[in-house]
Amino acid sequence: MEKSLVFQSDFGLVDGAVAAMYGVALGVDESLRLFDLTHEIVPYDIWEASYRLFQTVQYWPEGTVFVSVVDPGVGTDRKSVVAKTRLGHYVVTPDNGTLTHLKLYVGIESVRRIDESRHMRGDSGGSYTFHGRDLYANTGAKLAARQISFGEVGELLDPAAVVELPVGTVEHTAGGVKGFIDTLDVRFGSLWTNITREDFSSLGVPFGSQVEVAIRNGHTLVYNNRVTYGKSFADVYVGEQILYVNSLFRMALAINQGNFARAYSVGTGLSWSIQLKRVP
Amino acid sequence: MEKSLVFQSDFGLVDGAVAAMYGVALGVDESLRLFDLTHEIVPYDIWEASYRLFQTVQYWPEGTVFVSVVDPGVGTDRKSVVAKTRLGHYVVTPDNGTLTHLKLYVGIESVRRIDESRHMRGDSGGSYTFHGRDLYANTGAKLAARQISFGEVGELLDPAAVVELPVGTVEHTAGGVKGFIDTLDVRFGSLWTNITREDFSSLGVPFGSQVEVAIRNGHTLVYNNRVTYGKSFADVYVGEQILYVNSLFRMALAINQGNFARAYSVGTGLSWSIQLKRVP
Amino acid sequence: MEKSLVFQSDFGLVDGAVAAMYGVALGVDESLRLFDLTHEIVPYDIWEASYRLFQTVQYWPEGTVFVSVVDPGVGTDRKSVVAKTRLGHYVVTPDNGTLTHLKLYVGIESVRRIDESRHMRGDSGGSYTFHGRDLYANTGAKLAARQISFGEVGELLDPAAVVELPVGTVEHTAGGVKGFIDTLDVRFGSLWTNITREDFSSLGVPFGSQVEVAIRNGHTLVYNNRVTYGKSFADVYVGEQILYVNSLFRMALAINQGNFARAYSVGTGLSWSIQLKRVP
Repeated sequence: MEKSLVFQSDFGLVDGAVAAMYGVALGVDESLRLFDLTHEIVPYDIWEASYRLFQTVQYWPEGTVFVSVVDPGVGTDRKSVVAKTRLGHYVVTPDNGTLTHLKLYVGIESVRRIDESRHMRGDSGGSYTFHGRDLYANTGAKLAARQISFGEVGELLDPAAVVELPVGTVEHTAGGVKGFIDTLDVRFGSLWTNITREDFSSLGVPFGSQVEVAIRNGHTLVYNNRVTYGKSFADVYVGEQILYVNSLFRMALAINQGNFARAYSVGTGLSWSIQLKRVP
Repeated sequence: MEKSLVFQSDFGLVDGAVAAMYGVALGVDESLRLFDLTHEIVPYDIWEASYRLFQTVQYWPEGTVFVSVVDPGVGTDRKSVVAKTRLGHYVVTPDNGTLTHLKLYVGIESVRRIDESRHMRGDSGGSYTFHGRDLYANTGAKLAARQISFGEVGELLDPAAVVELPVGTVEHTAGGVKGFIDTLDVRFGSLWTNITREDFSSLGVPFGSQVEVAIRNGHTLVYNNRVTYGKSFADVYVGEQILYVNSLFRMALAINQGNFARAYSVGTGLSWSIQLKRVP
Repeated sequence: MEKSLVFQSDFGLVDGAVAAMYGVALGVDESLRLFDLTHEIVPYDIWEASYRLFQTVQYWPEGTVFVSVVDPGVGTDRKSVVAKTRLGHYVVTPDNGTLTHLKLYVGIESVRRIDESRHMRGDSGGSYTFHGRDLYANTGAKLAARQISFGEVGELLDPAAVVELPVGTVEHTAGGVKGFIDTLDVRFGSLWTNITREDFSSLGVPFGSQVEVAIRNGHTLVYNNRVTYGKSFADVYVGEQILYVNSLFRMALAINQGNFARAYSVGTGLSWSIQLKRVP
């Protein structure tokens, strides 16, 4: 097995923060293979960090170690942990909600608190603001390099106690299903909902049919239209709207070669609900 | 030979799309070496994808496998192919014009249609919108890992039938040469034309001379000035304009330490023509 | 020891410039390990390039080779050099001030001028504008691959003659210390000053105390307030300002989960001074 380490953060790639973490990791073991998930998480946006882990971790080889540093609480008593998912991936992260989606949709097999007395970088004394470099990159590198076992990370915690952000539930209504807009396929402006393909299939809508879609921001109706349920973008005209199953098997809404989120100023999160209804 | 795989897309690096492709590729062979050409192609801009391949592929070692996913037609009957260039590089891509510049300026030795029944990722069933992850990354990884030969990609196609976008021709006029603005050296705003060094040298203009430059958007004259023909930026003052041979041996126009495209609101493509004339 | 090569530039990742450098490096030795420091240096901003090297190089394994290409003077008689730092890292760069911070804060052990007749890429003839690809990537790759020794780079120069940008000095005043705003922690808008922890500790301010902070742009007072001196962000409320020791052991100013630079429109460089004073 290769020794791979994958980084995620809200640091951006404009200054030297990510490169400092890379250097520290290679200082632990110069033969490590380093990759990036993304460093463009909106600053402090734990929800997005959690979603991007869910979106990607499952496609990587078992045993891959991820380091995720979106850490508005650096210096507080928020715990630093390593979680092992049910699929056998490791995630090194502050326990601040970053593990929400993996916990709910993949499952966390076990979780350990990082023993800072053993795993903080040697000469970081006096700097308390860059745990990404001094603690998380360092611990992730030791684990990926197999210089320490998972057991040597620190004491076992209860996976059930891992911090969860509220994710919202999917409700089935008369002839319809209601959920939330979780995130965007950012570059293309497609809306990704928390309504799964299974949730939707209970409505019995065949490909090619119209579906009534209503999007609300709180109580304000932002969008209400009939949209074709298609297999892929090719099922509608360029510029036409389409409801489809996205690459994570959830319902999504797009404009073929356009940008739905920008066209209707739609945002994400629990204030943004979406209802899909069968057209009689 | 190393097993290298280079990705290009219009996905951006803000969400998890690229990291999902990386994961899939490493799932095929964890020892693959993964690189990025760019993921900042303007969404759906096949022309730019084609140009960036031309700009870079030739500098990579023979045998390197490239995966380019700018795919507005995902789900249509556009073909998915692997092209082998005359220099021995492989490009995995939808056959939608992405191979235009390589075909014209490097040459395509042979091209094969990807047999989707064999090369689509195993558990992608029910998702039809992310061929980048499920088909292109998967096929590129198998080829780069030498788990399949080029012959095993699928049936041979006629290279002459590979889809080409119109590129515009260079015309020689009395004392001048006329072409188009192909692309920008984005960060610096330099204009890169399709007029080659050989096209221009027929005018017999020595280094240090003035050249009359006219830029039109359709019939509208946007810029008309005399510019020094220099070897490099150092031949003109800071802030002065310069005509020079760019790193792909084509004529280019820049402001030394400034931004020509922004200064004169110049764009790219076949509506943007440029004429270079010898000053008598 | 691994053969690692780290790139920095102001090219951005939007077009093919970085990928062309990568290709050239792998053409020298396909087994090289390639990394990025950043390619988002503001175009022509040598100061920032110098600072980012200082911020990161020290964390990488001894012997790592860096290539930094921020080169407004390409084509002038500015020298091309390879510097070896006192910590044993190599930096391939134009000698235009890019080595300023490494020279002052780390030390340059020796420096050699690149012999262009030996180390310019073979078939770059006629292109004089992309030394990043044709000279710096090529030389850095040969050095990282140990195809050439440091001695074979070219003639020895005097390290004292390496070009330095003015960095400003820290002044001790009655009950205070005055310096400059060197750079930003870009994504979070924190101000990083050139006042070291040692400079500040001479004021004898304990953690938790208030410090009077004055920021001037030239003679204009831009900010004047009392700020808590904390160990880390957790020592102040969310939205509150904090003075702290940053990850390079220099004094920094931030808004906890906010953006100080944007809140007060603060810039960087020698026109931006900052004074820290003990509150009696």
